[in-house]
Amino acid sequence: MGAVTAVDRSPKQDRSRATRQRLLEAAVACLAEHGWAGSTVSVVAERAGVSRGAAQHHFPTREDLFTAAVEYVAEERSTALRALFPDGAAGDRRAVVAALVDLYTGPLFRAALHLWVAASNEDQLGARVTELEARVGRESHRAAVELLGADESGPGVRETVQGLLDMARGLGLAHLLTDDTARRGRVVAQWADILDRELAD
Amino acid sequence: MGAVTAVDRSPKQDRSRATRQRLLEAAVACLAEHGWAGSTVSVVAERAGVSRGAAQHHFPTREDLFTAAVEYVAEERSTALRALFPDGAAGDRRAVVAALVDLYTGPLFRAALHLWVAASNEDQLGARVTELEARVGRESHRAAVELLGADESGPGVRETVQGLLDMARGLGLAHLLTDDTARRGRVVAQWADILDRELAD
Repeated sequence: MGAVTAVDRSPKQDRSRATRQRLLEAAVACLAEHGWAGSTVSVVAERAGVSRGAAQHHFPTREDLFTAAVEYVAEERSTALRALFPDGAAGDRRAVVAALVDLYTGPLFRAALHLWVAASNEDQLGARVTELEARVGRESHRAAVELLGADESGPGVRETVQGLLDMARGLGLAHLLTDDTARRGRVVAQWADILDRELAD
Repeated sequence: MGAVTAVDRSPKQDRSRATRQRLLEAAVACLAEHGWAGSTVSVVAERAGVSRGAAQHHFPTREDLFTAAVEYVAEERSTALRALFPDGAAGDRRAVVAALVDLYTGPLFRAALHLWVAASNEDQLGARVTELEARVGRESHRAAVELLGADESGPGVRETVQGLLDMARGLGLAHLLTDDTARRGRVVAQWADILDRELAD
């Protein structure tokens, strides 16, 4: 047996990373479609085309898998959002507001919502999700401040941005059962105008 | 058997109404504490001190009981809210905003949230909850417009009020896992100021 070099290890690590990623994406899709009760490690492994043993190697518990999944996808979305506006609000503050709100209407938000609601009744999951939610919340806030070109040293600016993200979360919830796209478009247009006036001061 | 008069029937009707009300209140408390999976007609009947048969006489199905419960409590809250501000925003628009947001942080919101999320994965419940949500949403909007003294004939005013209720819903969601009272207080103070400026125009 020769020394294991970086070159030797690399393809195996790549495969392992790809497997992990497939599991995380399958976990979010599964949560969004079937809710917490219908989302087990076995169901996700099958969906990802990975053996149950391999899934458990990456994620020893169900809580590990699903909190990691929501965090992974939230990071991916946040990166994609920043890439959309490389110049921040210099582009168009209203477009930034619309894009921020969009983050809360897709499968990631549905998955996160199922996880939060399940966590509110399950202690073990609760602690994990609370910590995750704080981290994702801070990151969303940072991205919003940056993209909106908001100066948080001004009085009330921090709370203005927080309220916008709370509204985005509420709009996501309104979209859970029915297609709320048309109404949401009108609300977002109006509040983007309000925000534009407030942040321009 | 003599004719059943209004006087004869009244005490029985009162008892029946009281039983119904106990069931509805127990159902909301049960949903808020245990979620949909832990909320059955039997559990609610026991909590309300009512026989399972009597519960099923009032509410033949689980869906009947829980949608009626959320609707009943929403109506009670809405009535109580209007009673708090008999003069509408003539009192204090910022106090109205705070009171509107408060509607979304108690057991009723938690119960409704569990019902919505369960409904998103269960077709039969979904149709019922969608209809309920539309009715409760319209009523909340009407109460908000009235209490804020908002003139919806003005451009964007309708969407301004809708956005406020979306924000309130999002703030309720943020309160699900952790005590968000302090942060919410700051966000509400800031947005109540913004809303006051917007509606004063």
